[in-house]
Amino acid sequence: MKRISILGSTGSIGRSTLDVVESYPDRFQIIALAAGRNLETTLEQARRWKPRVVSVAAEEDAETFHKSLKTSGISGVDVVHGSAGTVRVATHPDADFVVSAIVGVAGLEATYEAVRAGKTVGLANKECMVAAGELITAEARRQGKPLLPIDSEHNAVHQCLRGGRLEEVERIWLTASGGPFRNTPKSEFSSITVEQALAHPTWKMGRRITIDSATLMNKGFEVIEACRLFDLKPDQVKVIVHPQSTIHSMVEFVDGSILAQFSVTDMRLPILYALTYPERIRSDMRFSVMDLRHLEFAPPDMEKFPCLALAYEAAEAGGAKSVALNAADEVAVAAFLDGCIRFDQITTVIERVLNETKSVQLESINRILEADVGARGAAQEKVHQLSNKPARLRPSPALREE
Amino acid sequence: MKRISILGSTGSIGRSTLDVVESYPDRFQIIALAAGRNLETTLEQARRWKPRVVSVAAEEDAETFHKSLKTSGISGVDVVHGSAGTVRVATHPDADFVVSAIVGVAGLEATYEAVRAGKTVGLANKECMVAAGELITAEARRQGKPLLPIDSEHNAVHQCLRGGRLEEVERIWLTASGGPFRNTPKSEFSSITVEQALAHPTWKMGRRITIDSATLMNKGFEVIEACRLFDLKPDQVKVIVHPQSTIHSMVEFVDGSILAQFSVTDMRLPILYALTYPERIRSDMRFSVMDLRHLEFAPPDMEKFPCLALAYEAAEAGGAKSVALNAADEVAVAAFLDGCIRFDQITTVIERVLNETKSVQLESINRILEADVGARGAAQEKVHQLSNKPARLRPSPALREE
Repeated sequence: MKRISILGSTGSIGRSTLDVVESYPDRFQIIALAAGRNLETTLEQARRWKPRVVSVAAEEDAETFHKSLKTSGISGVDVVHGSAGTVRVATHPDADFVVSAIVGVAGLEATYEAVRAGKTVGLANKECMVAAGELITAEARRQGKPLLPIDSEHNAVHQCLRGGRLEEVERIWLTASGGPFRNTPKSEFSSITVEQALAHPTWKMGRRITIDSATLMNKGFEVIEACRLFDLKPDQVKVIVHPQSTIHSMVEFVDGSILAQFSVTDMRLPILYALTYPERIRSDMRFSVMDLRHLEFAPPDMEKFPCLALAYEAAEAGGAKSVALNAADEVAVAAFLDGCIRFDQITTVIERVLNETKSVQLESINRILEADVGARGAAQEKVHQLSNKPARLRPSPALREE
Repeated sequence: MKRISILGSTGSIGRSTLDVVESYPDRFQIIALAAGRNLETTLEQARRWKPRVVSVAAEEDAETFHKSLKTSGISGVDVVHGSAGTVRVATHPDADFVVSAIVGVAGLEATYEAVRAGKTVGLANKECMVAAGELITAEARRQGKPLLPIDSEHNAVHQCLRGGRLEEVERIWLTASGGPFRNTPKSEFSSITVEQALAHPTWKMGRRITIDSATLMNKGFEVIEACRLFDLKPDQVKVIVHPQSTIHSMVEFVDGSILAQFSVTDMRLPILYALTYPERIRSDMRFSVMDLRHLEFAPPDMEKFPCLALAYEAAEAGGAKSVALNAADEVAVAAFLDGCIRFDQITTVIERVLNETKSVQLESINRILEADVGARGAAQEKVHQLSNKPARLRPSPALREE
């Protein structure tokens, strides 16, 4: 029986994790849940899963939630809140496995603490690895526990890496759908609307990650994540456009063999893989190989998608530059979604912030969070310079969900 | 330093193995070579590699060869001959690794003896596994030594299988180029010429295997080989047509994940993999993922290629039926190449022989060889019934090369 805590239980990965747990009642047990402000869903989850601890974002919500539990006749659930509450969920002594699925740097501290507490962590939070990958992987290595990627690309890489030793890897290939603007001429990028940018061809995802997919910044984050997770140099991590998103990623070994992984595009599959690793257990998520018809591949257009080049720059520098990349992107994407800047100006904001960021390493989570706040401020400034409309004030790292 | 004996050193796999050995002089050493009747090439190999033992096919050739060695001033090479000579090469006490690359059942006894002598065997001889897969794998298991497939499909499966445990495999997918007649209507099969059948779209191979690729019988043999090598049931081994032959094969795990392997189409790659397993070492055989453009897939047409269905039948029955499948195919293909029967009659011959073959298990190599001789006789008879031209008498299992 694997005992699981979920950080971000009401988000899409959190809910998919609970779906998986539901399908294998003899294998998994829910110990603790950290949610955000969606109290209704959180209450349903508490009712269904009887966790020992539930954490919500705000103090006032914790009180409301506590009352609702009482009214529903649910007892034995400890209600906590805020980042301390999330950390409590992440480090609950009864949990073996922590699913890290809070979007943004908000999940950073709790994820790090879960690793420090010796938990096996399933990582669905990309920003954790972009901003603090060096710290987190070093800690996991110290603890002798695997970090199991839950996004489809890194999960695919993790599977393919089993075909050899890490030092036998020549490079890896992350596949990219290419986003909705793969065939749009660069000259039209300045007039791309929010609606156009939100229409992703393959995956249905949250708003920020959908925009990040349209700029290929999402792939850039994945490049950094892969460098940190698998201890690879940026030039060992390649991107290839594959519009069908059938092959999730590939690993090329020094002997010239390449292994590729594919499956249905269902996040429950990498979740199941992470939860059961090193075992595999039967699921009904079947990809019909007989239905394979055509797969297409093409090199990415780095000139059309400069975010990808910026990400490689940040991957190489690491530390503060990586933190700035993520923070500036989050602010820039929000500004685009709010109509403050144009689609092509997302890159402008990030580039300007990166140029101002000193290339230094950051030795603690606190320094990373400080750098994050600083970079957000800088990005707001750049947005302001570019826009006539004032940027909406957005909360700095707090508990938010997808 | 890995010490290697090669069965079939002058054939295409044998020569490729020596190419690989040549590239890594610090890693590999040649201990013994078994060749056939190509004395010139064998002499060159003896001169270059200074093996301790060389085996040739015929007794008279051994004498000639011995003299040639003397004339060339090469000493210290023991010259042996015939099947006893091949077995001596296969079981040489100084060899750790035996490459089994004699085509046909001629390589059977020596391969089995290599396994019995506790050697790690690299298998390029498909017929060994078709005719005697049960015996050979059982013996390898007893010896605790791996059987490492050297053909591209099974080598790909072997690599992908590292992504999970054997009991976690749902099924495997062997890719097939589909051969030159993939798009030829069945109605034209009766008029296919030898020249047309020998023009394989992807791989350059020997004559028999090229015809076997055109009828898909080669894929059928691979189905049986896969069942034996990886301990799978025939319905766990699927075939998918993939004209580019880029993906060499795939493994589908119970959780729904599929791993695929690809690389350049160069036999030195699976040879290197087998020779260095469980390590991988650097080669210059690079497949350029950036050059990937289109991959196509389609289900095989079992009605158009009935050989595949016959192979599944033999895979299920095993024992005498598997032996008969291979023997009848060899005779039928030879008869087609000799102009005795039509292309579509290859199937007729095999089907008639299979129908007459009792489904019994064969407990020794001798019984397998007897069954092989019997099935060949039966197949000659069927050829005779179909043809006006008498079938050319072909030597029963002797030392032949590709």
